Amino acid sequence: MSRLTFAAAALAAAGFAAAASAETIVVSQAITEAEVTAAQEAWCAALVNISATFEKDGQAAAKALAGEVIDAAYGYQMGAVLFKPTLTVAPQTFRPTREGALAYFVGDDPAFPNDTGFALKGWTACAATNNAVFITGGTATTMGNVAITGKDGAVTTVDKTWTYVKDDAGNLRIVVHHSSLPYVAQ
Amino acid sequence: MSRLTFAAAALAAAGFAAAASAETIVVSQAITEAEVTAAQEAWCAALVNISATFEKDGQAAAKALAGEVIDAAYGYQMGAVLFKPTLTVAPQTFRPTREGALAYFVGDDPAFPNDTGFALKGWTACAATNNAVFITGGTATTMGNVAITGKDGAVTTVDKTWTYVKDDAGNLRIVVHHSSLPYVAQ
Amino acid sequence: MSRLTFAAAALAAAGFAAAASAETIVVSQAITEAEVTAAQEAWCAALVNISATFEKDGQAAAKALAGEVIDAAYGYQMGAVLFKPTLTVAPQTFRPTREGALAYFVGDDPAFPNDTGFALKGWTACAATNNAVFITGGTATTMGNVAITGKDGAVTTVDKTWTYVKDDAGNLRIVVHHSSLPYVAQ
Amino acid sequence: MSRLTFAAAALAAAGFAAAASAETIVVSQAITEAEVTAAQEAWCAALVNISATFEKDGQAAAKALAGEVIDAAYGYQMGAVLFKPTLTVAPQTFRPTREGALAYFVGDDPAFPNDTGFALKGWTACAATNNAVFITGGTATTMGNVAITGKDGAVTTVDKTWTYVKDDAGNLRIVVHHSSLPYVAQ
Repeated sequence: MSRLTFAAAALAAAGFAAAASAETIVVSQAITEAEVTAAQEAWCAALVNISATFEKDGQAAAKALAGEVIDAAYGYQMGAVLFKPTLTVAPQTFRPTREGALAYFVGDDPAFPNDTGFALKGWTACAATNNAVFITGGTATTMGNVAITGKDGAVTTVDKTWTYVKDDAGNLRIVVHHSSLPYVAQ
Repeated sequence: MSRLTFAAAALAAAGFAAAASAETIVVSQAITEAEVTAAQEAWCAALVNISATFEKDGQAAAKALAGEVIDAAYGYQMGAVLFKPTLTVAPQTFRPTREGALAYFVGDDPAFPNDTGFALKGWTACAATNNAVFITGGTATTMGNVAITGKDGAVTTVDKTWTYVKDDAGNLRIVVHHSSLPYVAQ
Repeated sequence: MSRLTFAAAALAAAGFAAAASAETIVVSQAITEAEVTAAQEAWCAALVNISATFEKDGQAAAKALAGEVIDAAYGYQMGAVLFKPTLTVAPQTFRPTREGALAYFVGDDPAFPNDTGFALKGWTACAATNNAVFITGGTATTMGNVAITGKDGAVTTVDKTWTYVKDDAGNLRIVVHHSSLPYVAQ
Repeated sequence: MSRLTFAAAALAAAGFAAAASAETIVVSQAITEAEVTAAQEAWCAALVNISATFEKDGQAAAKALAGEVIDAAYGYQMGAVLFKPTLTVAPQTFRPTREGALAYFVGDDPAFPNDTGFALKGWTACAATNNAVFITGGTATTMGNVAITGKDGAVTTVDKTWTYVKDDAGNLRIVVHHSSLPYVAQ
């Protein structure tokens, strides 16, 4: 299958911006705020979905799903992702590899012994609120809060930065993800 | 399964709350088609304006105006512009410097002896028609025709490529400009 | 006072320790001049190769090869390429589709009746000389001459602008290609 | 003074990449790892410098210096910076404005009552260690640790993400800055 065949499918699926404006062909790879919001909603939905899958179908199913989510939503295939998850500790604070991201989300990896599976903690809701969005054109970065709700209804709020780039198929991919618990004055 | 599919699957269960974009600060440096069209219209208006100024106020006034136009519309301050004007000949075909651009538009520069001043030829109208626009995010390129009308009403049509970047002030600047007469089969 | 001046002023007092870049993962999608030069050489080699294939193996083989070259070297799968070939005429001057590019290079397409196959004309050598290169980071544009040598040894020189972007696999792809015969004063 | 006059000075000062490679003019706005490292060193040096200035010359001098540093090293003039400092708390966690950044570094602003002046705490050394660097071309992002040393020799290590873009003068500017204390398991 040639690249163009892939493209035909991918462009349609992605709703890629090649619209006819009058008679002018316009291709825009610029990232829009709406695309960013959709990507954040998809991330949140995926987190809740992994939790639900774990409850219903167990660890293996949750791990398989998390792998699919990472492959679809992150940019590990570009070489590395700058990922500082909320709860990691040195010397494994940063997770530039897919393996490290997967371990963080679903645990079960002896190479990351401190990981217990952040996505398995029974999250029932997730919502992002952006303080600001900075779009350079080829990249879009959001900074703000993500509030995630546990089984008992308690809400955990984290400070979150995400940077997205657009891949060849027109999909946003996370290439920077810095998450941290709010500072608490001592 | 796409990210959007993930999203659709879990949104209801997740009780997803939309981000409050009302309070979100959004900075976008991405170039829009409307900005490109405005820049083309400004270029055309400037060409006609230089011609009119030459007719009315003479060479010095036209040259001063052309200098202002170049400083406002091109990116020479970034180091160089890739400029191949319509009517230049080797070995001065390309005009990577501001000096070379100014000579092309208004002549009167002994360093560019073949330049007679393209913008001084009495142009009374100018309009761009884009075949296609390609926006990478940080850059926008147009390809199409520019039709310019002389004093006698005759229209000259050239094939034109322009690439714009956005400067720190948010203004588009031309960094690539390739103009050529249409090919005529022998 | 510049940032570097700040740095120089305080580095000694700060006892600054250099970052351990030995262990730093670096992903760079920036385009280099070397990558651009390699892409130009590949384009030239492909042109000569299509001519040789046509001589040796005929039209069908040349057409198949040209299709592979276009799929590998141009960005049509991104939605469109801004392509103004050297010898096209209105109303088919611009070739934003793969079909129009293929017809230009090898002809044999009733939808493009004026195309006789530019790549089939027995080219034996091809070399690009850049006047200037402008790299925005995500894009790289060259402007200069391409000299192509025919079977009889005669050299044709064209004015050429190419803009490249890098695809997900790290390969450069042409998204803008404006070629024109040098202007000849009447 | 025209833009070009500014440019001449700025390009020389910035060491802007417009070098003659053979006879080809090359302008590259792509960000290099070396530029990123220099920007990080300058940030660290500025932090120590503000602390030293506060000790020696008092609050007003430190505040003036911090303003200069912010104006030179951050991109607030682009509309906003996505800045989550280490020690801020809701509802003023994020500092998208220059005013909020200045208050964080040197306090003394009734609009930000919790800010005591992070840069005034007697820092004597500062060093960044990058886990990974992701350069998209027009942007460069680092993720890693910054270790800062207090007067008593105690070292505080934070998790840090910085994204830089290059301004018109060729200087890097921070447009994203997310800093957080390491997570401590409860």
